[in-house]
Amino acid sequence: MQLTEEQLQEQIGKLEGWKLERDRLVRKYMFSEYMKGIAFVDEVATISEAFDHHPHITIDYKTVVLRLAADVEKLDLRQAHEFNEAFEKTR
Amino acid sequence: MQLTEEQLQEQIGKLEGWKLERDRLVRKYMFSEYMKGIAFVDEVATISEAFDHHPHITIDYKTVVLRLAADVEKLDLRQAHEFNEAFEKTR
Repeated sequence: MQLTEEQLQEQIGKLEGWKLERDRLVRKYMFSEYMKGIAFVDEVATISEAFDHHPHITIDYKTVVLRLAADVEKLDLRQAHEFNEAFEKTR
Repeated sequence: MQLTEEQLQEQIGKLEGWKLERDRLVRKYMFSEYMKGIAFVDEVATISEAFDHHPHITIDYKTVVLRLAADVEKLDLRQAHEFNEAFEKTR
């Protein structure tokens, strides 16, 4: 379901660290160790398969950036919350 | 050790799938399944820790792109060979 601009901004406000970048939801996660970032990517992959919805991922040493599709829907917001939970577990 | 332009071109010619892109060694790997690409990234991470040299990685669904540092040295070429071997095992 498509969200109104107002609903979207309200929902993003509840998502720690995420922001809109050219209509895509983006978050940068930073880790104390390279392999922790990789473990996080493994978690992200498992969540992505469960959602059948795969963010664009970049790994630049200890920094992992996730980008979710344009036209943000409720699904993306739920998924972003799960990525944040995975981050709390692996960082 | 820095390579001459000629040595570099010769070495890259031996590296399947790799090319120079603005002075960086780049290869795009494509997988039949998303989780195979993720397993490959895990292998890449292990190799990268062993080399203490970490490529920039992007994961775009079943496509994984590796970018090695500018100023290509012999180390980068050896590492690129190892990434290709890992790809043969995981794809």
